Amino acid sequence: MKYIGESLKLIKEHDIDVYDLLSIITDDVKYEGLLLPRAVNLDDKHIVIKLKNGYNVGIESEKIRKIDVIKKYTKAKDESKKKIEINNKLPRISIISTGGTISSKVDYKTGAVTPILTAEEIHESLPDLSKYANIEPEFMYSISSENINHQHWTNLSERINEKIIQGDKGVIITHGTDTMAYTSAALSFSLSGTPIPIILVGSQRSTDRPSSDGFTNLMGALQFCLKSDRSGVFLAMHEDLNDDRIAIHIGTKARKNHTSSRAAFESINSLPVAYVKGEKIIQNKSNIMKSSEFSPRTEFNEKVSLIKFHPNFNPEIIDFLIEDGYKGIIIEGTGLGHVSSKCFESIKKSTSKAIVCMTSQCLWGRTRMTVYDMGRELLNLGVIPLQDMLPETALVKLMWTLGNFHDNKQCKEIMTKNVAMEYSERSLINNSE
Amino acid sequence: MKYIGESLKLIKEHDIDVYDLLSIITDDVKYEGLLLPRAVNLDDKHIVIKLKNGYNVGIESEKIRKIDVIKKYTKAKDESKKKIEINNKLPRISIISTGGTISSKVDYKTGAVTPILTAEEIHESLPDLSKYANIEPEFMYSISSENINHQHWTNLSERINEKIIQGDKGVIITHGTDTMAYTSAALSFSLSGTPIPIILVGSQRSTDRPSSDGFTNLMGALQFCLKSDRSGVFLAMHEDLNDDRIAIHIGTKARKNHTSSRAAFESINSLPVAYVKGEKIIQNKSNIMKSSEFSPRTEFNEKVSLIKFHPNFNPEIIDFLIEDGYKGIIIEGTGLGHVSSKCFESIKKSTSKAIVCMTSQCLWGRTRMTVYDMGRELLNLGVIPLQDMLPETALVKLMWTLGNFHDNKQCKEIMTKNVAMEYSERSLINNSE
Repeated sequence: MKYIGESLKLIKEHDIDVYDLLSIITDDVKYEGLLLPRAVNLDDKHIVIKLKNGYNVGIESEKIRKIDVIKKYTKAKDESKKKIEINNKLPRISIISTGGTISSKVDYKTGAVTPILTAEEIHESLPDLSKYANIEPEFMYSISSENINHQHWTNLSERINEKIIQGDKGVIITHGTDTMAYTSAALSFSLSGTPIPIILVGSQRSTDRPSSDGFTNLMGALQFCLKSDRSGVFLAMHEDLNDDRIAIHIGTKARKNHTSSRAAFESINSLPVAYVKGEKIIQNKSNIMKSSEFSPRTEFNEKVSLIKFHPNFNPEIIDFLIEDGYKGIIIEGTGLGHVSSKCFESIKKSTSKAIVCMTSQCLWGRTRMTVYDMGRELLNLGVIPLQDMLPETALVKLMWTLGNFHDNKQCKEIMTKNVAMEYSERSLINNSE
Repeated sequence: MKYIGESLKLIKEHDIDVYDLLSIITDDVKYEGLLLPRAVNLDDKHIVIKLKNGYNVGIESEKIRKIDVIKKYTKAKDESKKKIEINNKLPRISIISTGGTISSKVDYKTGAVTPILTAEEIHESLPDLSKYANIEPEFMYSISSENINHQHWTNLSERINEKIIQGDKGVIITHGTDTMAYTSAALSFSLSGTPIPIILVGSQRSTDRPSSDGFTNLMGALQFCLKSDRSGVFLAMHEDLNDDRIAIHIGTKARKNHTSSRAAFESINSLPVAYVKGEKIIQNKSNIMKSSEFSPRTEFNEKVSLIKFHPNFNPEIIDFLIEDGYKGIIIEGTGLGHVSSKCFESIKKSTSKAIVCMTSQCLWGRTRMTVYDMGRELLNLGVIPLQDMLPETALVKLMWTLGNFHDNKQCKEIMTKNVAMEYSERSLINNSE
């Protein structure tokens, strides 16, 4: 997007172009970095440059005292756009791009981060992947993941199903990390019983830093697709801060538990199914889901809400949702699955019109609603305890269940059964309450 | 509470009293346990017995085939109610009971769990404590902690303040674990600058089991009160599963992260200030809050809500709260502090009528809303980023701020400043965005 107003004036006066490497001196600070295109919501009084450390900084045009071009931007030559050669001895892996930090590459001539849009560009950026597989890249979206919703889940599910039908060995989806675990849960249900591995991959570091985790995560996902005998939906991210081990999490058991760390994701109430380091994979032989029939169900009902209980929680929020036609509510209760007795009346009214399920805001452990009076009362009111299912996974499962099944009793049954390893085995053994 | 209807009939027919040890045979199962008094919400068709493993089970009267009294209940003799002796050489520590699993003791004659109601009973149950201090027990509530609200916080704050004025060396509050971290945050703000340690203690195991953690947690809190030179509001619980080390968490940084483990609580984005094992304490010399003036502010505004963003989140919930007169909203956003752009219109409207703050559902790490366009847009709309403050603590802090300060600008300032270590030091250093 082009600069406007005062920023445009400044740029014209100094004969600067986007992606030029600049030195800028303001009243307080000296900056060095690449001029980025204007962001959608940026006013006309700032310009934005990308610093060497990978972060972007907005600088008020008025405060700039001196501005010099260190190096002019030159476009990459066309010769880099090679034709992709297919090696018939290698399997085919699709990489579907949806957006987020990982769906960007560095132009090494300028240091600028640009979206990966074409197959050629993926090959240019990630030539190492082609040693192992015929990579079929596809650009579906370029979306900050907080804007991903049930429609994207449906479209993505259908596109992945086409990839399965065409005989891919595996499908990798690059995705912003913010809601990546919600999407991995969504695909786990919509494509349950998939005969191939489907792996979501994100990145916590912008790709123009040597510490970027995007490539190692992607390579980890690829190695798992090629070398594991497991199918299902998974999520591949760094295991910890210190090495290059990639953890392969079950798609319904992963959670983003750190805002910025490379090891942002954890398996909750479960272990990762495998770790990948370079070309080696170490598989965890437990946590294997019995294979079920593969018949994709790709709809999601958007009239489902996740509400987190807290002291002084206003039960009128529940009334409001039910009046608005909501068909499902996931409660994130306290401890073993509790809410204040002030909520009981609203919950009682809601269970006749919607499916209301209980999870725990503790995250670790599981609901046990028979231990205390308050829990038993909620069970009597028709609340369904979801054991050790993550609240976020529960939301997605209820959206999926209500999207594809239309008998209320059947929907309730589905919520209490394992579809995609959303319940740990131990949790199901204890599922007698 | 007395049994009614069919249950009462059954009990009368068999000449059974509450707390008798029974053998019960149903169609499928044989039970052995103590008959408990009828729970408040129990229907007239079940009786409840406490099994040897500490759990309660409800049995349908109709299904009972055989019922025998193994042992009749006999009341403890009055001679156990000794007069409390005060040792003038020891400091005074108050123990205020509010309810929850910890506020119960075993009658060793019967195995029944009953609330601790009197000073004598605390002494009987916990004689070891009196070696170290003159314990002043006080019964304030007997509440499942999911029913604790802002009024309890106010009353508790005022009572603790009286204890401070009367010269206690420390105050311990026993509390149900479900919302204990919300209450520890509440007291951290209402009594910020307290000259003495105030420690919340809970228990994850019913006290009629040898593995009960209630006593070790209580002893840990007591030792910390006596031996640490630190004041403030803290939360004492088991550090891990394997030993008797008690972690003393900062009241604003603790979170219940497991539904049932003894080590249910973790310090998030912070370390515990100390560990206690037996009589030894190991103090962490970092994390020390600069002492501030002590002037209790004990009000809380209940018109504050915590809402968790998720894909397909309905922004009309925000509209609903604002129309209902809410003065504060804490958003639990994704990642660095994001919500979908569909919420922007509602957030824009809300920030003129309420204080709207952003936390992260990742829990670990901190918000950084200047990195991506979507975050910057939210900042432009007037959303206040709360760095590494826990969402639950943020809710309580905003309730407290709006309860005690009435200038909107001042309230916003208070939200961004450290009152009770709710921001980690590192977070404040980076607080430039």
